[in-house]
Amino acid sequence: MPRKPKRTIVSLKRAHELWQQALDGAGVGVTPPETISFAQAQGRVTAAAVRAQRSSPHYHAAAMDGVAVAAADTIGASEAGPKRLRIPDQAEYVNTGDALPDGRDAVIKTEDVARLKDEVEITAAVAPWDNTRPEGEDVVVTEVILPEGRVIRPVDVAALIAGGVTAAAVRRKPRVAVIPTGSEVVPPGTAAAPGQVVDFDSYLLAGLLEERGCEATRWDIVPDDPAALWQAIADAARQCDAVAVIAGASAGSRDYTAQALAELGEVVVHGVAIRPGKPVILGLVNSSAAVSAAKDSAAQTEDKRDACPAMKPFVGVPGYPVSAMICFEQFVEPLIARWRGLPGRVERRCRAVVSRDVPSAAGSEEFVRVRLGAVGGRLVAVPLARGAGLVTSLVRADGMVRIPALSEGLAQGEEVECTLLTPDLFSELTALITGSHDLSLDILDSLLRRMAPGMRVASTHVGSQAGLGALRDGYCHAAGTHLLDPETGEYNLAYVRRLFKPGEVSLVTVALRQQGLMVAPGNPLRLATWADLARPGLRLINRQRGAGTRVLLDHELRRAGVDSARIEGYRREVYTHLAVAAAVRSGAADVGIGIAAAAQALGLGFVPLAMERYELAVMSKSLDEEPLASLIEVLRTQDFRRALTDLGGYDVAETGAVRVA
Amino acid sequence: MPRKPKRTIVSLKRAHELWQQALDGAGVGVTPPETISFAQAQGRVTAAAVRAQRSSPHYHAAAMDGVAVAAADTIGASEAGPKRLRIPDQAEYVNTGDALPDGRDAVIKTEDVARLKDEVEITAAVAPWDNTRPEGEDVVVTEVILPEGRVIRPVDVAALIAGGVTAAAVRRKPRVAVIPTGSEVVPPGTAAAPGQVVDFDSYLLAGLLEERGCEATRWDIVPDDPAALWQAIADAARQCDAVAVIAGASAGSRDYTAQALAELGEVVVHGVAIRPGKPVILGLVNSSAAVSAAKDSAAQTEDKRDACPAMKPFVGVPGYPVSAMICFEQFVEPLIARWRGLPGRVERRCRAVVSRDVPSAAGSEEFVRVRLGAVGGRLVAVPLARGAGLVTSLVRADGMVRIPALSEGLAQGEEVECTLLTPDLFSELTALITGSHDLSLDILDSLLRRMAPGMRVASTHVGSQAGLGALRDGYCHAAGTHLLDPETGEYNLAYVRRLFKPGEVSLVTVALRQQGLMVAPGNPLRLATWADLARPGLRLINRQRGAGTRVLLDHELRRAGVDSARIEGYRREVYTHLAVAAAVRSGAADVGIGIAAAAQALGLGFVPLAMERYELAVMSKSLDEEPLASLIEVLRTQDFRRALTDLGGYDVAETGAVRVA
Repeated sequence: MPRKPKRTIVSLKRAHELWQQALDGAGVGVTPPETISFAQAQGRVTAAAVRAQRSSPHYHAAAMDGVAVAAADTIGASEAGPKRLRIPDQAEYVNTGDALPDGRDAVIKTEDVARLKDEVEITAAVAPWDNTRPEGEDVVVTEVILPEGRVIRPVDVAALIAGGVTAAAVRRKPRVAVIPTGSEVVPPGTAAAPGQVVDFDSYLLAGLLEERGCEATRWDIVPDDPAALWQAIADAARQCDAVAVIAGASAGSRDYTAQALAELGEVVVHGVAIRPGKPVILGLVNSSAAVSAAKDSAAQTEDKRDACPAMKPFVGVPGYPVSAMICFEQFVEPLIARWRGLPGRVERRCRAVVSRDVPSAAGSEEFVRVRLGAVGGRLVAVPLARGAGLVTSLVRADGMVRIPALSEGLAQGEEVECTLLTPDLFSELTALITGSHDLSLDILDSLLRRMAPGMRVASTHVGSQAGLGALRDGYCHAAGTHLLDPETGEYNLAYVRRLFKPGEVSLVTVALRQQGLMVAPGNPLRLATWADLARPGLRLINRQRGAGTRVLLDHELRRAGVDSARIEGYRREVYTHLAVAAAVRSGAADVGIGIAAAAQALGLGFVPLAMERYELAVMSKSLDEEPLASLIEVLRTQDFRRALTDLGGYDVAETGAVRVA
Repeated sequence: MPRKPKRTIVSLKRAHELWQQALDGAGVGVTPPETISFAQAQGRVTAAAVRAQRSSPHYHAAAMDGVAVAAADTIGASEAGPKRLRIPDQAEYVNTGDALPDGRDAVIKTEDVARLKDEVEITAAVAPWDNTRPEGEDVVVTEVILPEGRVIRPVDVAALIAGGVTAAAVRRKPRVAVIPTGSEVVPPGTAAAPGQVVDFDSYLLAGLLEERGCEATRWDIVPDDPAALWQAIADAARQCDAVAVIAGASAGSRDYTAQALAELGEVVVHGVAIRPGKPVILGLVNSSAAVSAAKDSAAQTEDKRDACPAMKPFVGVPGYPVSAMICFEQFVEPLIARWRGLPGRVERRCRAVVSRDVPSAAGSEEFVRVRLGAVGGRLVAVPLARGAGLVTSLVRADGMVRIPALSEGLAQGEEVECTLLTPDLFSELTALITGSHDLSLDILDSLLRRMAPGMRVASTHVGSQAGLGALRDGYCHAAGTHLLDPETGEYNLAYVRRLFKPGEVSLVTVALRQQGLMVAPGNPLRLATWADLARPGLRLINRQRGAGTRVLLDHELRRAGVDSARIEGYRREVYTHLAVAAAVRSGAADVGIGIAAAAQALGLGFVPLAMERYELAVMSKSLDEEPLASLIEVLRTQDFRRALTDLGGYDVAETGAVRVA
C-alpha cells in the first residue's frame, strides 16, 4: 500500500473558514462577462445593469379602439350636449395599439362615439392622453431594465425585448471538471464484475452543477495511476474554473488525489470532522503551472482561457454518494454562489419531532437524512438509514437534521430543526407508513401519486410490533402489521388490543399473503417444513426481532420443537423480505423466511408454509381523513389488486376490507 | 371593422370550472410515456415505477481496509488474547470496495491487525458481516427505486445507475405551440415603426412553458388574415398537445382567433371577469378535423403523432404582457400539471401590509403585483403600476395580491394575503426606497447586489413629500427627497422637522444635482429662465404634486410672478425625470423640469437653473442596521461616485455625508 500523506482532520466550521480564505486569496469571484442573445438569456445572471435601447411603447399609442382626437377639441362634450368632429381632420378611427396621428393626444372610446357621414358625434370630453399609452409609458430609453446580478427569468426576457435589447452581458457559466477516479470504477451500462463499482457520482455531481447553472464536464474515469491522475487534473485546471476529483473507495484512489494536488497546487483541508463526508479534500490547483507542465495539449485549449484566477478551486469529493452530496452542499454550493455573484442557496427549515432514537458518536458533526410527514398536525421526521453508501437514502430524503459534534444523538420525540431538501414538500400530503415491510407499499405509492397528484406514501420498515408502537405514539398514519396470535391463530387483533383501547384502531386488509421458505432455485436442499431448518450445516438468514415474520418463525419453531440456538445464522438479521431474498440468491444463506412475492421477484425457489393477513393498522378517527381516505381508495382499485396478483403469492379477495379492533 | 362574435364574460371561478370540465371531457391527462437514457432523465417525470435491474452493491463488499476473514475463525480474539490467522487461507488483505473472497463474511479493520510473516495477528473478534456491505444493502434487484409520477433529480439519476437502470419510462414532454398573431406585430430585433409592436409575448410564454418542463414551439407571426390563422391553428393542433394563440392588441388580431377556434373546435370561455386578463379565450381544437382539412402537410408530421386526445386544449392569450402572464398562471399551469401528473405549482403565501390605497372597480377580480420588503419587522407590500401593458411591473413584482370582484380595493395599512412570485425572496434583504425619483437609485441597486449578494434596492416613485409620509408610517427604509424650503433656501430639513421629532430622522446625501429645463436638442425655442415658461403656446410637461421638482417649479414661478394657470400643460403630470424627458423627446411637450442626467440620457438640450440636494431620509435608529448600513457603504464607494458623475449634472463631493435632522 502507498504511504498515506499526513493529514489533520478539522471541524466543519474551520473547514469553511479555511475554504473561504483560500478562495479569497486566489481571488475567486464572479465569472467574466460574455454577451449573449436575449433568446439564450433565460437562467443566466446579468453581469451589468441592462438599459433600454428603445422606449416602450416607442410611439404614442391608442390604448382603446375608438377615435383619436385633440383633447382640446372635445372640451364641453357630454351626453346632454354632444359635439361633432370632422373626419379625418379632427377625428380618426384607431384600433388599440395604433400610433396616434400627428396632432392627436387622446382617444375617445367607441362607446362614446356615433358615426355620422363625414363626422363623428361624441358624448364625452377627454383630457390629454386619456385612453393612450404615451411613448415610454413602460420603459424609457436608457432606463435600467435589469440590475446587475439578477437571474434572468422569462418575464425579464420579455422586458429585454420590449426595451429593444437583443443581446446582454451575462456572467459566463462556471465551468467545472468532474473527474471520476479508481481502477475499480466502471462506466454505467457496464456489466460490472464483483469488486467493480459503477460510476454514478460523476453523474450526480454533474447533474447538481448543471441544475445550479454551471457547465459540468465529466472526464473519463482515471485509473489508480498517479501520472494519469496528475495529467487529468492539470488538463482540467487549464480548461475549467474548478476541478472536482471523485475518489474511488479503494485505498489507491483515495490517496493519489491529495498527493497530486500537493504537487499541482496546495492542499488546504484534508479531512473534515463530519459524518458522512470525512475524507473531503479542499485546495487550490495552479492552472498556469499545469499549462507549462503540459505544453503538448495547450494549443487546442488556448481559446477557452480567459481572465480567471491562476489558482483554481479544487475539491476532492469522497466516493460514497451520501458523502459526495454533503461535500457538494457544504463546499461546492458556496463556490457557485461566488461565481454567479448571488447569495447561497436558501435553506428552508422546519421543526419536526424525531420518530426514533438516533445515537451518534461524539466528535463528528453528523448529517442525518429524514423523511417528513405531518401526523395529526405534528411534523414527524423519520430518520433514514445512515450508511454513506446508500444512494437510496438520498432518493428518499425530504430533509436533513444536523447532530452537533458534542451531542450523543437524537432521542425519540425530540424536536429538531430540519433543513428541507424538497422545497415543495408541504404541498405534498404524505402517508407515513411504518412497521412491517410488504412489496405492496411501493405499488401503493405509485398508484396514489397517479390517482391523487401531490400525495405519496413514505414507508419505513421496522417490523410489525415497532410499527404499532409508532402508531400509538403518533409517528405514522398507518402501521403495516402481520402478527400471528399463537393462542387463536388470528392475525393482528390480539396485538392491537394489547396496545389500544377498544375501537380506537381499525385494521385495513391489504391482502392475504403466502409465507414460506425462500431457497435456491429448484430447492436443491429439498427443504419442506419448519423442522427442516434445524438441519445441521444449513445457514439461515433471519428477520429482526419484532418483525411479523420473525414472530411466525419463532412460533413455528416452538411448535416443531426446534431450539433456535441450534440454527446457524439465526442471529443474522435483515429488515426486509427482499433483503432476505438477496442473501439467499447471493449464496450468503441457504434459506430465509419471507413472502412468495420476494422469492418470485428474485427468481428463487419457494416452499409455501402459511397464509397470513397483512393489514394496515390505522387510528379509527382518521379513517375518513386524508391521507388515509385516498390511500384506502387506492387500495380498493382494480389496478392495485392486479399489480399485487402479478407479484405472486397474494390473495386479494378481502383487499380493502376494514375491521374495527 | 369585422363583426364581433357574441360572448359572455364569466367569473374566474366559473372559467376554472368550465376549463376543467372541458379538459376532462377531452380526456386530457398525462402525456404518453417514452423511454429515455438515464443521462437525459434529469427533470423528467417517471411514467411508471422504476425497478432495480441489479442489486447495489451487486456483490459482498469490504466496507473497510483490512483483512477479510470468516467471522467464525475470530471468536475469542481480544487485546489480551490475540489470535493468529494464516495468509491467505484464513485472512486476505482487502481494500474498501473489494469483493469478499469466497468463504469470508467479515472484515477486520487494519488497526486491529498486525502483519506477521505468513500470518496476521488479530486483537478483536468480528461478527458475520461486520465491516462489510452485503450484496443488496442499498438496493435489491427488482426493488422500486423511483415511484411513478416523480420528477427525476440528480440523486435519482445516481440511484438509477446504481440500480443498473440505463433507460427509464418517462412522460413525454408536453408540446405546446405558441402562435403570435397580428399584422402590427414584428419580430425582436426589427426596427419597429410607430404602430408596430415587437413580439415579446411568444418568448415570455415559451420561456414559461420550458421552465415548467414543456417543449414550446414558437410559430412565425401570423398576420390578421383569417385563412392564415386557421391554417396555423390546424397545423399546430396536429403537431402539438395544445395550442396557444397570442392575440395582437388590434381589433383584427383579437377577433379572428375566436372565430377560427369556433370553426376548428369549440369555444368554452371567451372573456373572464379578471383584470388584467379579461379577453382570454379557452377551448378545444379538433386535431383530426384539422388533419383531414390540411392533407398537404400531414405526411411530414405523421411521425410526431401519438396516443393523444383528438380534442386538444386551446388558449387564446391576451396580447398585453401582464394579461398574458395571468392567463398563463390561471389556465396554462393547471394544464401542465395534468400533463405531467403532478400537483399544480405550489403557491407560497405571506401576509403583508399595503403601503398605499389601491382603488379597484367592483365587478372584476383584480390581480395587483407588489414589491415586498420587511421594514422594522413588518412585511410591506408596495403596489406596482397596474397597466396590463407594463412588462416592467412583471420584472419588478415579488408578489401578487388578489382583490375580490366585490371589493372596492385595498386601503393603506390593510393586511393582505400575498402570493409570492420569487420563492427565494426571504433570503433577500430588500432596501425599500420610496419618494422622489433619481437615476442614482438604479445604480445603487446594481452596486448593492454586487457588494452584498442577497441584498437589493426596490424603489418606487411617489414624490418627496409622499416619501417622507411613507417613512413616518413605516412603509419604507429610506425616502428620496429634495424639498426646497423657500424661507431658508435650505433643502429637506424644514420638511423633515415638520413630520418628525428632533433627531428622529437622519439625512444621507446622495448628491447635489442640477435641475433645469429639459428642451429639444439645441434649445430651438431659446428658453433660458423660469419666466420663459409663461411664453404663449409653449407646452409644458409637469411632475405630480408633492414631487420636489414640482415644489421647486411652483416656488420659482411665484418668485417670477408667473400664474401657473396660464401655462399650457401645467396639469399634465408624470412621475419620473425620464418620463418628462421622454415627453420632450417625443415632441409631446416643448419643455419639462428635471435633472440634467435625464436630459443627457435622452440627448436633449438642458438649461441649468438650480443646484439642489438630493438626500435619503432614514430613521436615525436604523442607520447602523441592515439594509441601511450596507446601502450607505455602497453610497460611499468610488464606484458609485464615478457612475453618478458619468450620468452628468451631479456633484458628488458630499455624497455619503449624514446629518441628523
